[in-house]
Amino acid sequence: MDSTAHVTTLTRWVATIAQGLAAGGVRDVVVCPGSRSTPLALAVARSPHLRVWMHIDERSAGFFALGLARARSAPVAVLCTSGTAVANLLPAVVEANLARVPLLLLTADRPHELRDNGAPQTIDQVGIFGRNPRWSVDLPTPQDEALPYLRATIGRAIGVARSAPAGPVHLNLPFREPLVPDRALLANLLAEPVAPVSVMPSRRMVSATEIATLATSLAEYRRGLIIAGPDCPPDLGPLLVRLAHRLRFPILADPLSGVRYGSHTDELVLGAYDAFLRDEHFAATYVPEVVLRFGAMPTSKPVLLYLQRHPQVRQIVIDGGAGWREPTSLANEHVPVDEHWFCLALADALASSQREGPTLWLRAWLTAEQAARSVIQDHVLSQTAISEPGLFARLGEWLPAGTTLFVGNSMPVRDCDSFLGPRTAPLTILGNRGANGIDGLVSTGLGLAAGGAAPLVMALGDLSLLHDSNGLLAARFHNINATIILINNDGGGIFSFLPQASETDQFELLFGTPHGIDFAPLAALHNAQYTLATDWSVVHTALTASFAGGLHLIEIRTRRDQNVIDHRRIWPLVSAALSRAGVVERIGA
Amino acid sequence: MDSTAHVTTLTRWVATIAQGLAAGGVRDVVVCPGSRSTPLALAVARSPHLRVWMHIDERSAGFFALGLARARSAPVAVLCTSGTAVANLLPAVVEANLARVPLLLLTADRPHELRDNGAPQTIDQVGIFGRNPRWSVDLPTPQDEALPYLRATIGRAIGVARSAPAGPVHLNLPFREPLVPDRALLANLLAEPVAPVSVMPSRRMVSATEIATLATSLAEYRRGLIIAGPDCPPDLGPLLVRLAHRLRFPILADPLSGVRYGSHTDELVLGAYDAFLRDEHFAATYVPEVVLRFGAMPTSKPVLLYLQRHPQVRQIVIDGGAGWREPTSLANEHVPVDEHWFCLALADALASSQREGPTLWLRAWLTAEQAARSVIQDHVLSQTAISEPGLFARLGEWLPAGTTLFVGNSMPVRDCDSFLGPRTAPLTILGNRGANGIDGLVSTGLGLAAGGAAPLVMALGDLSLLHDSNGLLAARFHNINATIILINNDGGGIFSFLPQASETDQFELLFGTPHGIDFAPLAALHNAQYTLATDWSVVHTALTASFAGGLHLIEIRTRRDQNVIDHRRIWPLVSAALSRAGVVERIGA
Repeated sequence: MDSTAHVTTLTRWVATIAQGLAAGGVRDVVVCPGSRSTPLALAVARSPHLRVWMHIDERSAGFFALGLARARSAPVAVLCTSGTAVANLLPAVVEANLARVPLLLLTADRPHELRDNGAPQTIDQVGIFGRNPRWSVDLPTPQDEALPYLRATIGRAIGVARSAPAGPVHLNLPFREPLVPDRALLANLLAEPVAPVSVMPSRRMVSATEIATLATSLAEYRRGLIIAGPDCPPDLGPLLVRLAHRLRFPILADPLSGVRYGSHTDELVLGAYDAFLRDEHFAATYVPEVVLRFGAMPTSKPVLLYLQRHPQVRQIVIDGGAGWREPTSLANEHVPVDEHWFCLALADALASSQREGPTLWLRAWLTAEQAARSVIQDHVLSQTAISEPGLFARLGEWLPAGTTLFVGNSMPVRDCDSFLGPRTAPLTILGNRGANGIDGLVSTGLGLAAGGAAPLVMALGDLSLLHDSNGLLAARFHNINATIILINNDGGGIFSFLPQASETDQFELLFGTPHGIDFAPLAALHNAQYTLATDWSVVHTALTASFAGGLHLIEIRTRRDQNVIDHRRIWPLVSAALSRAGVVERIGA
Repeated sequence: MDSTAHVTTLTRWVATIAQGLAAGGVRDVVVCPGSRSTPLALAVARSPHLRVWMHIDERSAGFFALGLARARSAPVAVLCTSGTAVANLLPAVVEANLARVPLLLLTADRPHELRDNGAPQTIDQVGIFGRNPRWSVDLPTPQDEALPYLRATIGRAIGVARSAPAGPVHLNLPFREPLVPDRALLANLLAEPVAPVSVMPSRRMVSATEIATLATSLAEYRRGLIIAGPDCPPDLGPLLVRLAHRLRFPILADPLSGVRYGSHTDELVLGAYDAFLRDEHFAATYVPEVVLRFGAMPTSKPVLLYLQRHPQVRQIVIDGGAGWREPTSLANEHVPVDEHWFCLALADALASSQREGPTLWLRAWLTAEQAARSVIQDHVLSQTAISEPGLFARLGEWLPAGTTLFVGNSMPVRDCDSFLGPRTAPLTILGNRGANGIDGLVSTGLGLAAGGAAPLVMALGDLSLLHDSNGLLAARFHNINATIILINNDGGGIFSFLPQASETDQFELLFGTPHGIDFAPLAALHNAQYTLATDWSVVHTALTASFAGGLHLIEIRTRRDQNVIDHRRIWPLVSAALSRAGVVERIGA
C-alpha cells in the first residue's frame, strides 16, 4: 500500500471507530497520551459527538472511566497506547468485570511484524485482561476490506458491554506507521450521519407459571427476609419495598444497594442489622424460613455469619446478570432474571394473598432496628471526640439530599453500613465492591463527579487516598468538584479488628504500616483546599463550604487502637437495648 | 481438619516456602499489606534469612522488586494479598518478562470454595499474568501430603526465574482461615537448616566447529560492526572489546549496554553514532558487510534506520537468553548462546587471523566518532542555558566513578544516548527497556538503591515522576539514599519530535498534556530535599551535595518547543564536522 492509500485507509478506519462509538451511545472517551494511539486519539478528539477526558496515569484513567460509566449509566471508552500502558488498566478491568460496569478498552498496539521480537514498547496485549472482559478481540491493522467488520465489531462491543451482566470489552487495535490521519477526510467522515449497529437490550425472564408457583410457596411463610446487597440494579428500591409489603418481610438494605436511602424508604427498610445481628440471642432466636437475596453479598459480616448459622434456610438468589453471587454455597435456588421484572411479577402474583398487619416476626425485626438505631444515634452522636463511627452517623444528618457518597473499602464501607442509617432524603452511596480493592478509589469518585454526581463526597482511609493519589490529577485537568473526607489513622485500620492483631511483634511492620505522612502537601500538589478538622463543627463547616465547588480535602485523624475500642463499646449497648425492648425473648412466627 | 491441625499444617506450609526461598538464595521479599497473605507475611518477617521491604502500592512494589533484583543479580520475591492487589503487579511482571529480571510473584488467594462466586476481594488470579511469567502455578491450599511438592516447587520456581532468559515466576497461594500460624512451631521450623532444591545454572553453547566456521568467515570481512544494545549480560564489556580488537570492528555501545562506560572502554567503543548516523552521506556511504548484535535493539533510532537502509547486510544476533530480539526481521542468523562464552570462543578462534592496524573502515568510524563527540562537547557544553542535551553532556563529567544512573524512557534515555559519551570512569546506566514504559521508574530506581547501587541518580521527565509518584513511598519506609533529577518540560516532550506535532489544534490536549504542576509539594509530601535549579552551577552543587545521603529532588525546567530546536541545531553541526574531517568522502574497505 502506498503512503497515501495507507493514510486514507487509516483515516476511514479510525473514523469508523469514532462514529461507531458515538452511534452506539458512547459519549465519553478517557484518553491517555501516547504515540501508537495517535490515529484514534485524533479521531475521537475531532468527533463532534465524543468528549475526551485526558489522564496521564492509565491505572487511574481506568477507574476514572469506571466512575464515569456508573454515573452515566452508559459505556465509557478508554484509549491508551501500546506497552505497559495497557497493563496498567488491569485493576480497573477486574473491577468493571466484577462490578458489572460497561467499559470499552481500546488499546493501540504495534502491527504483527513488531510483536514478540524485541520491538520497543511492545508487550503481549492479545488477551492481556484474561477472563475479565466479556469479549476480547484483536483487530487487524486498518484495511478497507474489513471496514464493515470493524463497524459491526464496534456495535457488537457496545452491545456486549451493556448486556446483563454488563462489563468490560477489550478491542486491541494495531496500527502501522504513519500514524497521522488525513485531516480533511477525517473531518468529512466524522460529519457524516451513521446508522448504529444496535443490540436491543434484552432481559431474562421465567414463565408466569414459575412465578405463580413461587408466589404460592412464599405466601406460606411468615418468617422471611429480603436482603438487598450492594450493586442492586438502579431504581430497584421502590419495587423491593412494594414486594416487602406484600410479603410482610423486612428488607436488610445494604448501604450500597440503592435501597436504603430515598423517598421509597419506609419502616420495612432496615439499616441497623449489622449491629443487632451481632447479638447472639437475636441471631440464634430469629431463624428465617426463607431469604430472598438481591445484589451482591452484603457488606455486613454479621449477615454472612447469620446465613451460615442457619444453613437450612431456603435461600433464593435473584440475579438478572446471571452471574453467581453466592459465596456461601448454601443457596439451593437461583433465579437468573431481571430484578425489576421479578419484583413486579412476584408482587402481582402475591396480590391475592396480601397479608394484613405486621406479623410477630416482622415486629421483632422492626423493634430490633429501632432499638439498635436509637443506641447508635444516642451513643455515637453523644461522643464529642472525633471518631470513625461518629463521622458516618453525622454524615447521615449532614449530607444534603441528592448527595453521592463514595465510600472506600476496608473500614469506611463497613462504618457506613453500621452507622449511616436509612433516610428518605435521597442519598446515593457507592463503592467499588466488585473486588473490594483499596486501589482506584479517588479516580472512581472523581469519575462519578465528572459524570454528573453532585455533590460528590468521598470518605476514604489514608492508605486508599495514597494508593490512588494520582487519581487527583483528573481534578486538575477537568476542574471537577469533589470533596474528600480523609479518615487518617496512619495505616491500615481494619487489621486491628482481625486475629493478626495478636502478632504484636510484627503487627505494625506488616499490617499497621504507619507512614506518618502529612497530607497538606498532597493537597497543595493538586490544588485542593485542605482542612485538618479536629472537631465536628470544623468538619461540618468545611463540608458544607466545599459544596460551593472545587476540590476539597478534609482530614480527620483517628487512632487505630482507639477505633477498635470505639466500635466494640457499641455492640454490648445494642444487645442491652434489644434486651430492654424485649425483642430477644419473643420468638417470631 | 480441626483447627489445631489446620494451623499446624498452615505453619509447616509457610515455613516451607520461607525456608525454600532462603535456601534458594532469595534474600529480599517486598511485602504489601493485606489479610489473606498473613501466614506467609509472618513467616517471611520471622525468617532470620529474609528481609521484608514493605510497600503500600503494589504497582510500585513490583517495580521496586525489579530494581532490587537487578541490583542484587538475584531473584526477589513480591508478596501481596488477594484481589486487585495482584492485578496491580502486572506492569512490573511485563517489564520483568521483557527485561529478563528474576521475580517471584507470591500472590495470596482465597481457597477454591470462595472463587468466582461473589466472595469479597476475590478475582481470577489463576494465570492472571498471561504469557508473561516463565512459569505459573496455582498451588493447593496447605496440606501435609503436598509439602514435598511445595518444597520442590519453590526450588523449581527459583531455578526457572534465574535460568536464561531470566524472568518472573508466579506462584498463586490459596489460604483458608484461620490465617495466623503457630508462633512457636513457626520459630522452630524457621530455625532448622534446610537443603535447597537447586537448579544448576546452565548456559547454551554451540560446537567448536560452528565457532571455527564463523570465525573463518568473519575474518574475511573488513567492514563490520559490533552493536551492543541495552541489557547485555553483566560484565560483557571487556570480552566484547577484546573481540572487537580481533576483528578490528568498532562497537556501537548503547548507553544501557554496560559496555559504553568502564575501564575496559577504549577507542573502539563508540557512543556518538546516534549523532553521526543521522548524516545521510555517512549512513549511505559506510555500508557494512556484517553486523554482530548483542543485547536488545539499540535505543538509537538512527541505528535502526541504518540497518533497515542496508537490508542485505549479514546480521548475526547473539542472544544467550534464546529470546528473539530482532524487530527488523532482517537478520538471517541467530546464535542463541551464552554471550560470554561466545565472545571468548570466537576471540580465541580468531587469534590466528589477528589483523594489524586499523582498516580504512575502522578509521572512518573512529574519525566520525571523534568529530561528532567534539561537536557535542563543544557546542552543547558551551550553551549556558538549561537544556536537556546540556544536562546529559554534563552528567558525563559530574557523576563520580561508580555511580548508577537510572534514566527514564521517552526522552531521557535518548538524550543519554546522544550526549553522554563513553568514559573509563565506571558508570552504570540502567533503564527499563523491556517495555520502555514511563511507569514504575521511580520505584525501579529506588529498588536499585535499596539493593546497593550508590550513588544512585535518576534522570526522569515530569510525566514519569508523576506516573510513579507513589514509588517515593519506598524512600520513606526504607530510608533510601537517591537523587532524582527531574527534567520538567510540563508534559510529554517526545511528541514534539513526531509527526503528531503538526496537528496543532489537538496537540496540547492529546500529546503535550501540560499540567502546570509545582513539584515542591511532592517533595514535601515525601520528605525529599528539593532544589529548583535555574543554572548549571546550582544543578552541580545540589547533585554533589545529594550524595551525602537522603532523598533529593533536583528540578530543572525546560520548554518542549525549545527542546526540539536545541536538538535539531546539533545534527547539522555534526554533519559539517564529518565533512570537515573528510570522513564522508572516504569509502572504507
